[in-house]
Amino acid sequence: MEEQIGGGGGANQLFKRLGTFMRKCMFRVLSVGAIPNHIAFILDGNRRFARKHNLPLEAGYRSGFLSLLSVLKYCSELGVKHVTLYAFSIDNFKRCPDEVRCVMDLMLEKVEVLLQEEIIVKQYGVRICFLGRLQLLSQPLRIAAEKAMKATANNTKIVIFICVAYTSTDEIIHAIQQSCIDKLDNHSQARKQTTTHDNANEGIEETTMVKLVDIDKHMYMSVAPNPDIIIRTAGGNRLSNFFLWQTTHCMLYAPAALWPEIGLWHLVWAIISFQRYHSYLEKKKKQV
Amino acid sequence: MEEQIGGGGGANQLFKRLGTFMRKCMFRVLSVGAIPNHIAFILDGNRRFARKHNLPLEAGYRSGFLSLLSVLKYCSELGVKHVTLYAFSIDNFKRCPDEVRCVMDLMLEKVEVLLQEEIIVKQYGVRICFLGRLQLLSQPLRIAAEKAMKATANNTKIVIFICVAYTSTDEIIHAIQQSCIDKLDNHSQARKQTTTHDNANEGIEETTMVKLVDIDKHMYMSVAPNPDIIIRTAGGNRLSNFFLWQTTHCMLYAPAALWPEIGLWHLVWAIISFQRYHSYLEKKKKQV
Repeated sequence: MEEQIGGGGGANQLFKRLGTFMRKCMFRVLSVGAIPNHIAFILDGNRRFARKHNLPLEAGYRSGFLSLLSVLKYCSELGVKHVTLYAFSIDNFKRCPDEVRCVMDLMLEKVEVLLQEEIIVKQYGVRICFLGRLQLLSQPLRIAAEKAMKATANNTKIVIFICVAYTSTDEIIHAIQQSCIDKLDNHSQARKQTTTHDNANEGIEETTMVKLVDIDKHMYMSVAPNPDIIIRTAGGNRLSNFFLWQTTHCMLYAPAALWPEIGLWHLVWAIISFQRYHSYLEKKKKQV
Repeated sequence: MEEQIGGGGGANQLFKRLGTFMRKCMFRVLSVGAIPNHIAFILDGNRRFARKHNLPLEAGYRSGFLSLLSVLKYCSELGVKHVTLYAFSIDNFKRCPDEVRCVMDLMLEKVEVLLQEEIIVKQYGVRICFLGRLQLLSQPLRIAAEKAMKATANNTKIVIFICVAYTSTDEIIHAIQQSCIDKLDNHSQARKQTTTHDNANEGIEETTMVKLVDIDKHMYMSVAPNPDIIIRTAGGNRLSNFFLWQTTHCMLYAPAALWPEIGLWHLVWAIISFQRYHSYLEKKKKQV
């Protein structure tokens, strides 16, 4: 009996390895074409998944986390250098308190596991960056997030940006405020330096005017290239205040599958669609 | 013979009227559900249409203009109050000079026709607003655009926003700069008023910090509600620097048809999709 179970386990292992081998072969074929440098995901549909299967809300989010691990593994195998996850928006804090607590607890639990498994994370070269208005998070989660960022800061194979307490308009406003602070400093300095000159006001105008480059510089996402694809699950063909600034030439792919249902084929299809558009998009980028 | 031709013309007229009657019946049925208050169009695919049919570039744009007239008529019949057209972006000025001239000439020609037919435009209650960095347009076009805006300013049935020399990041930067100018004025006034108080700097901080409401106020599109649907023809599932700020809860519908091929059924399908999502979107808006 044990032998049979062992045999079954062996067969499972074999199929698993065969599956991994075939996936890697497929990725090798895909890699002949362009591979996106940056994929962003809007993780939509965890709650609907729970309702669909009569599960408690938490189970929906936990299933979503399992899908996330698979997707991150595939992205890493494909050689995608930057992955962004729209995990929780500022607006989501207005959801029912139990749900907010459930998501925050799950996030804290997973960040703590990540901190415990630091060696494995290092082995895979994963760098974690949390983006957003982090002061809105609970203190334990904020501290854990900061520790995780510090612990993984030197890893370089793949950077995972986790947007929590994030909205794009908030990111833009943050960048504006930072730019204004810079400009006010410049303004004060310029006043001191130009009081003796005739064209004092012109100099001040030039140094105080906020420009596109200032905003770009102060965006949270200034550290990464703009995304090439946004994948939003659960069929919502809209951005919901995510990456508005960064998606000028970005393709939006919105499969009907809920986030916990996302699989290898959705990712492969997104890459193929990206490759079909890639030359066209490159041409557009050069044109503009 | 003449009678036969006259008869044919009569039959055509009859079919045309029957078509109009059926369309209006269908719109009446559609109007039982929610009708979008604001539809935005990205007019993509005119050049591809010309290439596909071996036509000169200008013919592609002229065909696109005919489609535009039909679409505007349908929108008006449906009771849509605001229509926005992404006609020409700032980046498009970098296209080949002949093409830029062709589009600008066509635009000037059509605006001049509109000015000549002012009475008809008034009868239909059409208000025209040009949005964007209009100083980039040629002087005759800019003057014609300003005249058209002035001539139609009191019409209220439908407002058509025409985005020319527009990109969304430019709109945001324009709003930031206007906000900064306002804030610098406030800053100067606050300095004068608070120099005798202890908490002078706090007051200045409060009045000089640019906030979300300031940016909202100074956007070109602050005069209209956010769009409910963006329809982008030619299958491009991306925004291309259009309405980034305004599309948080907006559905993107991207039919494969090129702009000159867009027809009644695309619009009807977009409205049906909007109605399917409407209650969900309304719930989301209330949630956030």
